[in-house]
Amino acid sequence: MSFDIEYMRLAIKEAEKGLGRTSPNPCVGAVIVKNDQIIGQGYHRQAGTPHAEVNAIADALDKGRGKNKICAGATIYVTLEPCNHTGRTPPCTQAILTAGFSRVVIGMADFNPVASGGADFLQSQGVEVRLGVLEQECRQLNYPFLKHSVTGLPWVVMKAGVSLDGKISRRQGKGGAVTGPASKQRVHELRNQLDAILVGSGTALIDDPSLTTRLEQEERRDPLRVILDSQLKLSPGARMLTQQSSAVTWIFCDQQASERKQKNLEQAGASIHRVDREQDGGLDLAQVLHQLGQADITSVLVEGGAAVHGSFLKKKLVDQVYLFTAPYFIGEQGTSLFSGYSIGEEETPLSLQEQTTETVGRDILIRGLLY
Amino acid sequence: MSFDIEYMRLAIKEAEKGLGRTSPNPCVGAVIVKNDQIIGQGYHRQAGTPHAEVNAIADALDKGRGKNKICAGATIYVTLEPCNHTGRTPPCTQAILTAGFSRVVIGMADFNPVASGGADFLQSQGVEVRLGVLEQECRQLNYPFLKHSVTGLPWVVMKAGVSLDGKISRRQGKGGAVTGPASKQRVHELRNQLDAILVGSGTALIDDPSLTTRLEQEERRDPLRVILDSQLKLSPGARMLTQQSSAVTWIFCDQQASERKQKNLEQAGASIHRVDREQDGGLDLAQVLHQLGQADITSVLVEGGAAVHGSFLKKKLVDQVYLFTAPYFIGEQGTSLFSGYSIGEEETPLSLQEQTTETVGRDILIRGLLY
Repeated sequence: MSFDIEYMRLAIKEAEKGLGRTSPNPCVGAVIVKNDQIIGQGYHRQAGTPHAEVNAIADALDKGRGKNKICAGATIYVTLEPCNHTGRTPPCTQAILTAGFSRVVIGMADFNPVASGGADFLQSQGVEVRLGVLEQECRQLNYPFLKHSVTGLPWVVMKAGVSLDGKISRRQGKGGAVTGPASKQRVHELRNQLDAILVGSGTALIDDPSLTTRLEQEERRDPLRVILDSQLKLSPGARMLTQQSSAVTWIFCDQQASERKQKNLEQAGASIHRVDREQDGGLDLAQVLHQLGQADITSVLVEGGAAVHGSFLKKKLVDQVYLFTAPYFIGEQGTSLFSGYSIGEEETPLSLQEQTTETVGRDILIRGLLY
Repeated sequence: MSFDIEYMRLAIKEAEKGLGRTSPNPCVGAVIVKNDQIIGQGYHRQAGTPHAEVNAIADALDKGRGKNKICAGATIYVTLEPCNHTGRTPPCTQAILTAGFSRVVIGMADFNPVASGGADFLQSQGVEVRLGVLEQECRQLNYPFLKHSVTGLPWVVMKAGVSLDGKISRRQGKGGAVTGPASKQRVHELRNQLDAILVGSGTALIDDPSLTTRLEQEERRDPLRVILDSQLKLSPGARMLTQQSSAVTWIFCDQQASERKQKNLEQAGASIHRVDREQDGGLDLAQVLHQLGQADITSVLVEGGAAVHGSFLKKKLVDQVYLFTAPYFIGEQGTSLFSGYSIGEEETPLSLQEQTTETVGRDILIRGLLY
């Protein structure tokens, strides 16, 4: 029993292999244990392909050299409750029963009404079920899936690189990195794991960024690029449109933006989406997130600049914060992290939950959830 | 030999008991070990009283119930090189020889030309000497002493409580704590250990602070209060002047400040010090630090506000930073940490060295050195 946590940790490691690849499905990992030996493991690789449990069973059969009943009496550890419905693949509960498992240990329940009920069903069939092992860690794996499957909206991660005094650049209107190379690497790992990356037109115009995933490893892929550009100021010659990339660029503009510009940008490969403006003049971010969620984008990395960060925070649309903090001061002429957002004088602040700090090169990464 | 580090760690623990009490002397601790048993320990308590070695020897004699040669053949661990000169007390090297130690393990060398040479002298007398055990930790104990004894200037610690986006208050010109109660407690511990605390007149007028050490423990003492108040705007009725406190208040003003105001403040117990103004209009901080150093103030805790922090940073007078970071955002209307300081557009930033992070209640404390 006491090894349940250790085996579940291995199942989580399996699940992590699928990070950024399973959307809009969750990341799930499974480990099969018999007589205190791991005899099989697997993870969900991509939507439409077999689930983690099925991959783990196949792995056990493979390693067991065709012994048909290799899983009989074994325990399967799975990070998310096995599905009980036929979607693009048959129900995993059936595969588990067929293989003959005597025990199923589950990280967290699936509260998607369509897929849930797996634990109860297995128990009704005489299988011993333990639910809720490393539940918190299993939940962290799938923040985007969990939010998207319930609300239809993507999980929003605010990412910024700041100086110790909270500045994102040395001078207003100028770009340039504040944080160091190790933080940059981490940002590319994030881009590799999230479905989309979003910046404002200011950042797009100042930096002419590529917004791609630049990592040494082979299996990188670019996130969908999303630009908030009310008046379609972006040039069709912008790097993000002319470069080679495995992803496309979506540009959100207001209802009045020039149709000529739209055509030019569309010819350059961009996809243009119109939304309303809010009273404060900014694009309606709720509409933006809704459209992204409709397209099965389960997560968005919001990379700024200050006005975009300010709008997301003001409208309480940020779920998670990644703050890379460089070890020096920029001073008063630097660009503050937020424009357009200020806490009320008497307002109780929304504090980072589950806050962690970690050293990343010479920088400090402060992470947490906002809710 | 391999226990040297552990015994030195205990000697450091001894030394720490004197933190904030030995100025302008260093904090020093000593532990005496014979046959792998600790037979005595001691620390330097206050300038003009016996040194750590002498206190440790007395402790050993006391515990050994008058056995005269209790320290013969023993090892003494001392965080700082034993002094070799007669100051207000006789040389510790002599006490070590008289007691009959066969071995002396020293944390760090004393580079004060007057007191140094102890290690060489002991070695010349046939005592085995090991120098440089936990040197870095021993140095950290005495940053203020080390700087002051070499330069005559106090060690400057910049302390601020900021939001995640680097703001020290919610609105310009308003006070109120940004960080939580655990950080507040740490600040009082700092005040209890440093010789002086310094704030600008803005902070003094807005907050009417007491600037005392408020701790449960009995042996607290207040640091010297230092106010930068060019035009002597502080009221003689200010809390820091009317309260009960074990420390006095020094006010620095410019050469033109009103003599009438000076008299009123002096009658209220303040000590007024005049310095020149710099070209940018601020008081000459080098003169301020020089006067404090002359008065044997070896350390100053600079608590703000933004203009004071900006001046100290701009003039490169900050030695150490304590940044207490609260887990929320304040936004653009908040007061930035610095006013009057900005890094140059192309300047290589002065980075925090030996940077550490630590959780303090719900806040994060980022510490480091600036040099």
